[in-house]
Amino acid sequence: MPRILVTRKEHFNAAHKMFRPDWPKEKNEAVFGKCANENWHGHNYDLFVTVEGTPHPDTGYVIDLKDLSKLLKEKVVERLDHKNINIDVPFMQGILASTEHLALAIWDQIESEIPKMGDCRLHSLKLYETERNFVELRA
Amino acid sequence: MPRILVTRKEHFNAAHKMFRPDWPKEKNEAVFGKCANENWHGHNYDLFVTVEGTPHPDTGYVIDLKDLSKLLKEKVVERLDHKNINIDVPFMQGILASTEHLALAIWDQIESEIPKMGDCRLHSLKLYETERNFVELRA
Amino acid sequence: MPRILVTRKEHFNAAHKMFRPDWPKEKNEAVFGKCANENWHGHNYDLFVTVEGTPHPDTGYVIDLKDLSKLLKEKVVERLDHKNINIDVPFMQGILASTEHLALAIWDQIESEIPKMGDCRLHSLKLYETERNFVELRA
Amino acid sequence: MPRILVTRKEHFNAAHKMFRPDWPKEKNEAVFGKCANENWHGHNYDLFVTVEGTPHPDTGYVIDLKDLSKLLKEKVVERLDHKNINIDVPFMQGILASTEHLALAIWDQIESEIPKMGDCRLHSLKLYETERNFVELRA
Amino acid sequence: MPRILVTRKEHFNAAHKMFRPDWPKEKNEAVFGKCANENWHGHNYDLFVTVEGTPHPDTGYVIDLKDLSKLLKEKVVERLDHKNINIDVPFMQGILASTEHLALAIWDQIESEIPKMGDCRLHSLKLYETERNFVELRA
Amino acid sequence: MPRILVTRKEHFNAAHKMFRPDWPKEKNEAVFGKCANENWHGHNYDLFVTVEGTPHPDTGYVIDLKDLSKLLKEKVVERLDHKNINIDVPFMQGILASTEHLALAIWDQIESEIPKMGDCRLHSLKLYETERNFVELRA
Repeated sequence: MPRILVTRKEHFNAAHKMFRPDWPKEKNEAVFGKCANENWHGHNYDLFVTVEGTPHPDTGYVIDLKDLSKLLKEKVVERLDHKNINIDVPFMQGILASTEHLALAIWDQIESEIPKMGDCRLHSLKLYETERNFVELRA
Repeated sequence: MPRILVTRKEHFNAAHKMFRPDWPKEKNEAVFGKCANENWHGHNYDLFVTVEGTPHPDTGYVIDLKDLSKLLKEKVVERLDHKNINIDVPFMQGILASTEHLALAIWDQIESEIPKMGDCRLHSLKLYETERNFVELRA
Repeated sequence: MPRILVTRKEHFNAAHKMFRPDWPKEKNEAVFGKCANENWHGHNYDLFVTVEGTPHPDTGYVIDLKDLSKLLKEKVVERLDHKNINIDVPFMQGILASTEHLALAIWDQIESEIPKMGDCRLHSLKLYETERNFVELRA
Repeated sequence: MPRILVTRKEHFNAAHKMFRPDWPKEKNEAVFGKCANENWHGHNYDLFVTVEGTPHPDTGYVIDLKDLSKLLKEKVVERLDHKNINIDVPFMQGILASTEHLALAIWDQIESEIPKMGDCRLHSLKLYETERNFVELRA
Repeated sequence: MPRILVTRKEHFNAAHKMFRPDWPKEKNEAVFGKCANENWHGHNYDLFVTVEGTPHPDTGYVIDLKDLSKLLKEKVVERLDHKNINIDVPFMQGILASTEHLALAIWDQIESEIPKMGDCRLHSLKLYETERNFVELRA
Repeated sequence: MPRILVTRKEHFNAAHKMFRPDWPKEKNEAVFGKCANENWHGHNYDLFVTVEGTPHPDTGYVIDLKDLSKLLKEKVVERLDHKNINIDVPFMQGILASTEHLALAIWDQIESEIPKMGDCRLHSLKLYETERNFVELRA
């Protein structure tokens, strides 16, 4: 039997900047370019979370996507949507707000919750900063 | 040399419901929510079928996508498009119509046919119920 | 100053069929083709509602899109999502469920509500049955 | 002969908030909801600019889209991309940053330039804040 | 009652170049840039055809989209798909292959056919050369 | 810690045909169908390049996507955009222009460059000929 993966898409809109306070402004601009704009910029982020597992014999679901969506809204979307990633988000404090780091922080918010929701585990997540730039994490 | 995978996208529009006849209506609604609506609902399904193999020296094709499309139309799309998955589809009789189960049934319709079409085999398929909810199977 | 139009997109998933009970099955199939399948089929419908008006001096909004979204959810989405258009939807009783007719019925549910929400009126709506087939209404 | 309209799409990523300094924080939050977050949020904006006119007999172009793209980059994208709309953008100073107001300000930046580029004029523009919320202006 | 417009999307893949044989190569390149490449380039074209009219009392359809699709395939897609627009397409002979000119030629192929298919007429068409560059014609 | 993959999307528009000069025209047409049209056809190609690695402690980037984009523009897009793949592209000379072969040739242009740009390597690439037909390569 093939392996079975189930994915849910969520989204949030947030501000951020790529800026190290331990570097002078000039170095931040040289390294991060326009992403270092001191007054922030922002994105419509798309998040795809993929769970691998076995369909439950009663429901045919690897995971109930209503439950996965609820988890993602509580642990991720409500904390990031219409927020400033550098200032407002507890789990990003003191962390450079690259898409890689944001994806890893999201991973940490949800990984241990997934196995409570079925015979399943977190397989991967994709975080799109734009349609042309995105990060994927894989267990 | 990298591994080579080739994908064809097809689509179909179908009705279904998530409903177990061995459960009372209340339990169906408690578990499946609005998906349990007795009078059905429906979706525009997108199907991506991915084949892995070696390009044929004569054509440069792992698989002729015209042939793969023809196979998918005969074995999958014609049987599902503008149908009721619970009632009209022979290979879904007696099976709870979750996206996971539908994807597995599609897999069974096509897996053994792929190797007849080149030096290749079925690698994976993705079935989108909506843009936000989808299932992937991997060999 | 240019005219100003503001649009909100919503979606719903529903079953329907194109079938006239006053015609024999053969005529229904001859005219409506596979859309006449007696056991229904379904779609992921996308709905775009466009309002024309003047931005409020306090908010800069022609209409608060949170309010428009709430109206559309109450008057349209909750009545259509995960429903059978032919059976479950009061405002479609006795009406052939073409996309044209469904769009007109949606128009009637919301037209008189829009002017209550600002210095604005319903300008147009688009209803997509699939990515390739859609209807637009214009006041 | 039908009327002829030509469209170019550009995009930019920016931060903003909906916040009136002459209102207390509570009123801003009551009216603008999460869009009033003091520390900003942001979007990937898509901009579609439509020009109406007559094809030039030498080129068949109503407007050379390379020229239109260059104009939009100079007058709009470079001033908005990776910026804070409330702070960094000269033509938005003192203006509440609703999508309606931003669209009107973009209109003012480009309207008089279009007729210099051919036998044509600005017909309309669309500004998408998200896939689900957008504004259109029409001459 | 609002006006009713119905749209069908089709697509085709074709090669073309922007090149005037009465101009030297240098002038073609100065005016048309990389679009003047002598050995052609190509696009995946998307075509949206919009018909305005009154729903037929028997069917609820302004126009049967199966019929419109068939017309578009016969008159447009079969003549353009996997063709060279400058060489292979009878209705583009001697015409500079700008998107404007191609859209006008498509208009001429279909305009008189539409009123034969219902109480309706050609309202507009959109031709996308890329996601970022497109032409619309309006009656 | 999960594996980390970063992707950049680029695009180019090109002409090609599927045609073997060592086969008669009839055999080319029998095997390649309308793709064998002697006068070429073309596509809007989308290219996704995925790099796997470890985020740099200074920047949080596996690879700076500005650098990856620059590499792809120099090595791939400038050589393919608005070109004829069979005639104009040095790295496709004498190679049948299937999407598989084109993807492999692009792989060869960039694979050795990626490790110079960080603690990372080429993981995979996807090349879309159309929305419905695409090839993926994986290291």
